[in-house]
Amino acid sequence: MNPIADGSSPRSLRLAIREGRHLGPTVGLAPGHLQGNIAIIPEALASHFLLYCQRNPKPCPLIGVSEPGSPFLRELGEDLDIRSDLPAYRIFQGGRDYETVRDLRTAWRNDLVTFVLGCSFSFEEALQVADIPLRHVEAARNVPMYRTSIKTRSVGPFSGPLVVSMRAFRPADAIRAVLLSAQFRLAHGAPIHIGDPAQIGIADIDHPDYGDEPVIEQGDIPVFWACGVTPQAALVKSGVDLAITHEPGHMLITDIPASTAESRLFDIDMT
Amino acid sequence: MNPIADGSSPRSLRLAIREGRHLGPTVGLAPGHLQGNIAIIPEALASHFLLYCQRNPKPCPLIGVSEPGSPFLRELGEDLDIRSDLPAYRIFQGGRDYETVRDLRTAWRNDLVTFVLGCSFSFEEALQVADIPLRHVEAARNVPMYRTSIKTRSVGPFSGPLVVSMRAFRPADAIRAVLLSAQFRLAHGAPIHIGDPAQIGIADIDHPDYGDEPVIEQGDIPVFWACGVTPQAALVKSGVDLAITHEPGHMLITDIPASTAESRLFDIDMT
Repeated sequence: MNPIADGSSPRSLRLAIREGRHLGPTVGLAPGHLQGNIAIIPEALASHFLLYCQRNPKPCPLIGVSEPGSPFLRELGEDLDIRSDLPAYRIFQGGRDYETVRDLRTAWRNDLVTFVLGCSFSFEEALQVADIPLRHVEAARNVPMYRTSIKTRSVGPFSGPLVVSMRAFRPADAIRAVLLSAQFRLAHGAPIHIGDPAQIGIADIDHPDYGDEPVIEQGDIPVFWACGVTPQAALVKSGVDLAITHEPGHMLITDIPASTAESRLFDIDMT
Repeated sequence: MNPIADGSSPRSLRLAIREGRHLGPTVGLAPGHLQGNIAIIPEALASHFLLYCQRNPKPCPLIGVSEPGSPFLRELGEDLDIRSDLPAYRIFQGGRDYETVRDLRTAWRNDLVTFVLGCSFSFEEALQVADIPLRHVEAARNVPMYRTSIKTRSVGPFSGPLVVSMRAFRPADAIRAVLLSAQFRLAHGAPIHIGDPAQIGIADIDHPDYGDEPVIEQGDIPVFWACGVTPQAALVKSGVDLAITHEPGHMLITDIPASTAESRLFDIDMT
């Protein structure tokens, strides 16, 4: 049983994570609030990565960028400290291998810039509220993810294939999923493909490149969304000396209500 | 009479401008296509300006960023050459004074980066299609613009007040204008204020800071949108050594249909 009661505030959940009282994935926590993928890189590469996100907003929907060296992102959470408020991090140092750590207090440097990107949890919640079954959730699996033959727009050292997540639905639910997810631009928005996996270079739907084996029922149609693993893969491929990401599924919980995220983050501050 | 026939393609209009056959404002040209504000600055300042746009997307809706030194933005128009395809430019060199030029071929440098930002023409067209009267258009005036007491989020050398444009409507039309403009996120989106100008620091609605005196009819309510003069003012205020903008009203005509701009510019390229 999860020690954290449903209905805990984003702030109290971040505190529980900071104090080591919650160690697992963040899926299902603080429902209704935007969760984020993170990418932390040295300032020297930040402008290239920022432009990479700007040119590839479906896999990289930017919801926050820190000042260099600052572990804080007050617009996403007043007390938020990026060094401690995720349950687990991956530290990459120039290659595919990484170290998993519980906090970044010793790894932190004064030239690090944090990028926070929206994640698919928000639209998955909206599908569940609409009683659209999510096969992987019902089977208690991670969502299956695939490298595609679609290239992202490259910027400086950052390039690589679009990675997609796949969810299978009955066709009528697939249509509703298209419409609902389109309302969450900052959670990857509408899907990028529906139907034949081969058309986007996926040879074997049963063997994803990341996540768990898919659940596809008779009569289902697969639907593919741009996925936050895309920028993570681009970071690793770039060979950058230091890059820090979240451990998959172990996200940053923000104070931002998902349904009004765009307005909360990007409207003019009238206060 | 405008020498350019209605219905000319964006490409033929850019060619006419390039060859000096069209010298005036671009309002009303290539209806249905996105037009852009431009800001051209040295690469050394580009990452700060990019982040300034990311943090202030309502006044600065980014629709394109060039490679350093390249005058081309193929995603906005295949033959597009930013040095020649606007009717007039302003060159700022470290202060409020500027020089107006017809092309940038002599001023061009290999470290210049071009930013293209959506402009309000797209949603104005949508209002006109919906038979919502635009007072300034009917009076053949420029839209009135005002500096407000609202600050933009500053980044590096870039800061300053939000500048807004004002359009006055009968209340029922104001509501429709809110809804219609919200569909054009890349043309400044929904308004940021409606009603009392004093609430956003506008002391005298009859004397705008830019553009022409407003037309406000009995019973009208004023509606205020974030305006592309905001980043231009931030550039000038920063004292950057060299900044090039369009001459107000003399925009970049793109090939992008305004109604599908977000999808055309930011969806995954499946071709």
